[in-house]
Amino acid sequence: MIRVDGTAQTVVPATDRGLAYGDGVFRTLTAIGGRPRHWRHQYERLAADCRSLALPAPDRAFLEREIALVAGDAARCVVKITVTGGSGARGYRRPDAPQTTVIVASSAYPDYPATCRAEGVAVHACTIRLALQPALAGVKHLNRLQNVLARSEWNDPDVREGLMRDAADRLVCGTMSNVFLVEDDRLVTPALDRCGVAGATRAVLLEAAAQRARTVAIEDVAWDRVLRANEVLLTNSVIGVWSVRRIGDHALPRGRMADELNRWLDEADETA
Amino acid sequence: MIRVDGTAQTVVPATDRGLAYGDGVFRTLTAIGGRPRHWRHQYERLAADCRSLALPAPDRAFLEREIALVAGDAARCVVKITVTGGSGARGYRRPDAPQTTVIVASSAYPDYPATCRAEGVAVHACTIRLALQPALAGVKHLNRLQNVLARSEWNDPDVREGLMRDAADRLVCGTMSNVFLVEDDRLVTPALDRCGVAGATRAVLLEAAAQRARTVAIEDVAWDRVLRANEVLLTNSVIGVWSVRRIGDHALPRGRMADELNRWLDEADETA
Repeated sequence: MIRVDGTAQTVVPATDRGLAYGDGVFRTLTAIGGRPRHWRHQYERLAADCRSLALPAPDRAFLEREIALVAGDAARCVVKITVTGGSGARGYRRPDAPQTTVIVASSAYPDYPATCRAEGVAVHACTIRLALQPALAGVKHLNRLQNVLARSEWNDPDVREGLMRDAADRLVCGTMSNVFLVEDDRLVTPALDRCGVAGATRAVLLEAAAQRARTVAIEDVAWDRVLRANEVLLTNSVIGVWSVRRIGDHALPRGRMADELNRWLDEADETA
Repeated sequence: MIRVDGTAQTVVPATDRGLAYGDGVFRTLTAIGGRPRHWRHQYERLAADCRSLALPAPDRAFLEREIALVAGDAARCVVKITVTGGSGARGYRRPDAPQTTVIVASSAYPDYPATCRAEGVAVHACTIRLALQPALAGVKHLNRLQNVLARSEWNDPDVREGLMRDAADRLVCGTMSNVFLVEDDRLVTPALDRCGVAGATRAVLLEAAAQRARTVAIEDVAWDRVLRANEVLLTNSVIGVWSVRRIGDHALPRGRMADELNRWLDEADETA
């Protein structure tokens, strides 16, 4: 089900700046019984991303109502919130007072095999390198062609994700996930100040770690560290935490950390 | 007037991949009496950009009919053609056989003062730097947030364009134009193999120069060369060629080359 600007509809003007320029931001989340999981973090990230693009953020209570409406009576579903610069005249310049378009859409929760979480997944090491753009780094904006190209690099349905590097061969993120490494007793996640998306689930995990007095280093991660890591973990709001068992032909062990981080996510879930 | 996939309509599905990811390409052109100016180059660039994103290109004759329909009886108007990856399920992966969305929209020809062409224009030196992404360089795709951010850097209506540099401080293009420099007797335009958009008008001018046995060097252009150039010229399909008279506080001479290149465009115009 899709709602646009508070009404049930499935279309947007063909002149929307989201389509013309990718001028907008989005979040994807899981709704449980119509309530968005990890909502405080999701809304904070959405609002921060709107600020980054100088767009007014939608009202939080409005979004909660919209999410409940598109979720309907689904026990669990995926909800995507998109905020665009709205419709305007031709040209890159925004109207002085942009009227955003707010799209809230639900879709079925994907039927990932239980083995993804229980045993881990195989991933592809993407060839395309993320461009360095500090002005947009971390923002979940609608300019996602690099992710589309990365996702087109493999067809094997058993390969669940692709790891993306930047132009300097540093690990940044997955095409649809953030990444954490376990290096001995250390938890590490790549810095996202040059490229990449700062996911809400990453933010939940960083806060959960702090609450447990666990340090997570946020730093540049050269690619060769990935292949030497004790564990490589993928995180997003739909999959939770998956362990990476194979990167291309390179096998990785599955440790205990994926289960522990999934517990952190459960305990952080205000809707639980 | 707007037509989508061959019918008069003003909306697209909210699930269109053009909106979700900027997964698509576009061209902007001038239609004279319903016929697209420099159409061979415009169509070639559109088709090449579709190939770059692995999207099927729209049929050329179909587009000609659509352009005539949206232009109506306008003596002169702007037409924008957008081709997107169409609607698909959630996720970066394209459907195996993508059904593109083709939007053809007309708008009034902008009422630029005659002085823009006759005397030249003032431009802003943009602060944001274009990220280097060879996989998408040259393509007029829908990921244009960098242009939006660049265009938001100035409000002065007398400043008509912004010049954009890449992360290594090389001149690349304007926010909505390509750039040519005159250095003594030499014509130069920046290489677009790392970032930037290869405009159809740039292609028309490169071909026109070759037909006249004039050399245009396509090469990296360090920013300090811009300030020392004899002339700096902006080109696109709506403005034609404008001379830059001022970059910020830096004054530039207006030579004869803008007029000459505008003649080349007129002579190359199959609709003339």
